[in-house]
Amino acid sequence: MKIGIIGTGHMGRALGTGWARSGHAVLFGSRDRAKAESAAAAAPSARAGSFAEAAAFGEVVLYTVRDVLPSALLGRADALDGRVVIDCNNRTLGDDGNPSLFRFDRPLPERSSAEIIAEDCPGARVVKAFNTIPSPVIELPRERLASHGVSVFVGADDAGAKAVVIGLAEELGFIGVDAGGLAHAHLVEAAADLLRLEIGPLGRGPYATLSLHVLPEA
Amino acid sequence: MKIGIIGTGHMGRALGTGWARSGHAVLFGSRDRAKAESAAAAAPSARAGSFAEAAAFGEVVLYTVRDVLPSALLGRADALDGRVVIDCNNRTLGDDGNPSLFRFDRPLPERSSAEIIAEDCPGARVVKAFNTIPSPVIELPRERLASHGVSVFVGADDAGAKAVVIGLAEELGFIGVDAGGLAHAHLVEAAADLLRLEIGPLGRGPYATLSLHVLPEA
Repeated sequence: MKIGIIGTGHMGRALGTGWARSGHAVLFGSRDRAKAESAAAAAPSARAGSFAEAAAFGEVVLYTVRDVLPSALLGRADALDGRVVIDCNNRTLGDDGNPSLFRFDRPLPERSSAEIIAEDCPGARVVKAFNTIPSPVIELPRERLASHGVSVFVGADDAGAKAVVIGLAEELGFIGVDAGGLAHAHLVEAAADLLRLEIGPLGRGPYATLSLHVLPEA
Repeated sequence: MKIGIIGTGHMGRALGTGWARSGHAVLFGSRDRAKAESAAAAAPSARAGSFAEAAAFGEVVLYTVRDVLPSALLGRADALDGRVVIDCNNRTLGDDGNPSLFRFDRPLPERSSAEIIAEDCPGARVVKAFNTIPSPVIELPRERLASHGVSVFVGADDAGAKAVVIGLAEELGFIGVDAGGLAHAHLVEAAADLLRLEIGPLGRGPYATLSLHVLPEA
């Protein structure tokens, strides 16, 4: 599968590298060519390009840029048409450099990042996923990760797009958990805030995870 | 420890019975004397009484009544003074009889149930806990439950009260997870909505659980 990665921060690099290792064709797109090339150099057979090149390349596009709408970032509203667009973002809380100072006592936003992106790109097949997964967890070897049964909550209105992303999560060693439609993405984003509270201010560290497990009844 | 249970619905019965089995002195309080007696009959050495008697009895009081403030239910604002008050409630979404029809697409409330109760009872030591635990999970035998490492997220501003509730959770076979202060209880309540979405509309059933696990780094 052809996967475009928009943004070469921790999440873009971790997921793009993981999928390149699984054999997918990955193009890392950045505003800064050197960053895209550095990301691509660390992943097997990956390419480097601009944001627009990543959008054009991918059947699946991972969107990791916060607080900037795709239509603004890419200069047009139809650049993601027909693509499975994964929104892995959570609300901005402050300086990413010091998550232990993030404040989680503010009310949750009324609308989810996923719904805002879907409204901005009506032709895209938007999927909420990976926003509850810290990037160091993504970088764990697949076999070791798989032994922990970590959930990736996957929300989408498009059932086919949801199935594609569940498959991409499971290739990395996660368990894909259907989290309903985009109208429920605000709950997945809120759950990520609980996890980020634990990771940062409460000191559980970047290998903390939040998972759904169905217990055996008897 | 003396534990008063306010309300004899599923949560009140499951937790009260569990703590009575652990050897605590439990008083089930209900508006309806017959319901309190039925709950007490199912738990070792437990007593039955009114809401006010449960409040007066408990060093710890479990508050399970939704959408009614303790000051109104108990007829005075100081009835819970000095007590560890556990708020296990989530927002009301519709008919409890059919959780598969609950709708989770509405915005989350700005303020948590726990904060509203704490404001109503300024003398109480309010603790958010157990709101992410379905009552059938509480009823599992302790040894079997313990093997799954299910989290009870425990939020409170009073560190001593938080420690008491973490202890009460662990006696039942759960893992108590510090979830910060009451200002963070809205995140624990939102996480419960994600779990309730999975349990009801998404069909995962009443043994679904949501847990924090910190993965080993290497």
